[in-house]
Amino acid sequence: MNETINQNTGMTTYNWSWTEGGVGLPGGFKTAGVKAEIRYQDKHDVAVIYSEVPAQAAGVFTRNKVKAHPLLLNLKHLSDGTAQAIAVNSGNANACVGPAGDEAALATAEKTAELFGLPVDQVLVGSTGIIGVPLPVDRLLAGVEQAAARILEGSQEQAVEASHEAALAIMTTDTASKEAACELRTSKGVIRLGAMAKGSGMIHPNMGTMLGFITTDAEIPSVQLQALLRETVEDSFNMVTVDGDTSTNDMVLVLANGTSGIKPEGADWEAFKEMFQAVSVKLAKDIARDGEGATKLLEVKVKGARTEEDARLIAKSICGSSLVKTAVFGEEANWGRVLCASGYSGAEFDPTRVEVWFGDLLMAKEGAGVPFDEEKASEILAKKDLTFTVILQEGTGEATAWGCDLTHDYITINGNYRS
Amino acid sequence: MNETINQNTGMTTYNWSWTEGGVGLPGGFKTAGVKAEIRYQDKHDVAVIYSEVPAQAAGVFTRNKVKAHPLLLNLKHLSDGTAQAIAVNSGNANACVGPAGDEAALATAEKTAELFGLPVDQVLVGSTGIIGVPLPVDRLLAGVEQAAARILEGSQEQAVEASHEAALAIMTTDTASKEAACELRTSKGVIRLGAMAKGSGMIHPNMGTMLGFITTDAEIPSVQLQALLRETVEDSFNMVTVDGDTSTNDMVLVLANGTSGIKPEGADWEAFKEMFQAVSVKLAKDIARDGEGATKLLEVKVKGARTEEDARLIAKSICGSSLVKTAVFGEEANWGRVLCASGYSGAEFDPTRVEVWFGDLLMAKEGAGVPFDEEKASEILAKKDLTFTVILQEGTGEATAWGCDLTHDYITINGNYRS
Repeated sequence: MNETINQNTGMTTYNWSWTEGGVGLPGGFKTAGVKAEIRYQDKHDVAVIYSEVPAQAAGVFTRNKVKAHPLLLNLKHLSDGTAQAIAVNSGNANACVGPAGDEAALATAEKTAELFGLPVDQVLVGSTGIIGVPLPVDRLLAGVEQAAARILEGSQEQAVEASHEAALAIMTTDTASKEAACELRTSKGVIRLGAMAKGSGMIHPNMGTMLGFITTDAEIPSVQLQALLRETVEDSFNMVTVDGDTSTNDMVLVLANGTSGIKPEGADWEAFKEMFQAVSVKLAKDIARDGEGATKLLEVKVKGARTEEDARLIAKSICGSSLVKTAVFGEEANWGRVLCASGYSGAEFDPTRVEVWFGDLLMAKEGAGVPFDEEKASEILAKKDLTFTVILQEGTGEATAWGCDLTHDYITINGNYRS
Repeated sequence: MNETINQNTGMTTYNWSWTEGGVGLPGGFKTAGVKAEIRYQDKHDVAVIYSEVPAQAAGVFTRNKVKAHPLLLNLKHLSDGTAQAIAVNSGNANACVGPAGDEAALATAEKTAELFGLPVDQVLVGSTGIIGVPLPVDRLLAGVEQAAARILEGSQEQAVEASHEAALAIMTTDTASKEAACELRTSKGVIRLGAMAKGSGMIHPNMGTMLGFITTDAEIPSVQLQALLRETVEDSFNMVTVDGDTSTNDMVLVLANGTSGIKPEGADWEAFKEMFQAVSVKLAKDIARDGEGATKLLEVKVKGARTEEDARLIAKSICGSSLVKTAVFGEEANWGRVLCASGYSGAEFDPTRVEVWFGDLLMAKEGAGVPFDEEKASEILAKKDLTFTVILQEGTGEATAWGCDLTHDYITINGNYRS
């Protein structure tokens, strides 16, 4: 087994590598992103992902009691563990609009099914944007039609560009598209994985956290795919927080169409899992970095917690603290807020045994501040990417969460979103 | 029984009324606030409250695992249910500084005890300000000495002014002092109640929430006083959120010294309870209104919840949502964020049966938006005091929470706090 250290994630990796592209990269997948004027003119806002053959499918959905209409439809359509197309729009969340919302989601699935000649339950749908405003269904269906036409006439050479347009089409207040693609070489051939995500505000660890779409040409039964997704989400998408708000629309969907002819097993499965996790972590970090108004990426590592769950609680509590986030924005060496946020996380620990590190600088030990080099602290806090580490002495639980600073721009963006 | 509607709280009241003053108003209590340069020059920063006779005492404390050193001392000193003096400083939280913090808290209690000739366990202490920086003990003790001298030479005529100086001395980023005083006329005579509080940032409903001090000359056994405080805090101080951060230092202390000679019983006890609750709600609202950077007070009422606890969860979740708070700041009629925050509160309810009201304007019904008068919505949102009401159809649980908008000034205040 040819093991290398991956530069992007720092993890020991099997024989896989990052490559160019997105959801359209894996064999048998085609995608398109088009401009349908759902809310804005001249913005990509409808994306369709299509697999030429039926694919095994898995999904995780928001834990918010208030679920958007597309999610309710997907829960039904995923019951047999297969799907062949996904239609997504930005600009309107199709949430909290009553029966008309369910009808709009169904109409989107029906139109997509018709265009590709599929049973309607083979289509999944997604929406992101403003809540409580009726979806402009006609414009959305026209967008789906336009995207389907591109896919049906497109060639594999355009996969990179088409993937990028799809990634653009799911953006709302995101300032950058979020894509990833990789390849795993096995003894039986190459498996490809593609992914895209969006998410900038209304993001919180308490569930699916955003929209994420992952495609692969590996052959993986839906039950196994669902288990992998659920496990991976816990340590990636669910560990991101931008503002503590858990949206009505968040979900991550995975399609595995098996066109590589390879069913990853044994060491190949371990390698695939690592690749899948690395892609999820990369997208999670991309989302945190692009948090609404953010200027810095904050990574919080917790070690020595009583349990892994306690480590998660503390890491997310620190990343989610408004006071920690404003201190990061202001580049203030205010480690007391880090300890304070640990204390109200709900995790069990003895505060008099805690260490707090900013980068490689020890700020507090045994729950109390230690003298530190102010200049070095300022240097660390001036960086774009910060890592805070909290070390307890309770057990072996570890977790990492990602967040961003809280800035004036967050207020500006969200004080004027609806208008 | 002479019942009237109180204008300030809207509640039906017994024969009690608001009056001028603060913690120094009730019989047998004296107070002072002085400038001791704990952190800033020319700011009141040390307050002492003294009862001429031993008082029954009760307290509630932060649920944060990381408790400031003064709180740990108070937990010991309150074990017999009595106290006679409270010494409080702002400018330094005396939190997370190790054994030196415990010594500083004890030294403060010892000095206060010595000055008034009390056993040390009759003294309670409190601190608020920056975490993790050693308390300047000498300056604090000098401040306590100065305050004690004022109290010992002071006359009751100065009670209003002295109370105000004490209220000033516990402020940190507060922009206004928070005081209340009232009198209850019973057939046996008059009972007086005085109170002061501070709180502006690092405020969250998950516990004591801030510093609050309540004095009364009623005769109330400590067990009864503790039960009243605990019950009252649940619907007042614990229902305030400014930024979701639960501080290491929050507490509310009550002293009842019995110098009125009146033990409120029967209808008098009901009247006293109502007065006590009204004072707590007033201070809670004062704190929300003065949230760091706040321009608006947001009151969220939840009705028809499955349980009172569910109603509390939803009300606090809405008040705590960054997206709701920025929408309030931006005066955006974004009721979808209100419904969304209800959905992730952890409460059980059917989203398709929810009504959302802004003031007296219906925004959503059966979980979906309804057409509304945009002009009227703008008028409502332009007000300084907003009330959002969420009505479920699950049961009879009701709760009210208070919060404020999230503004540019919050970022500015907290991005530059330590320096």
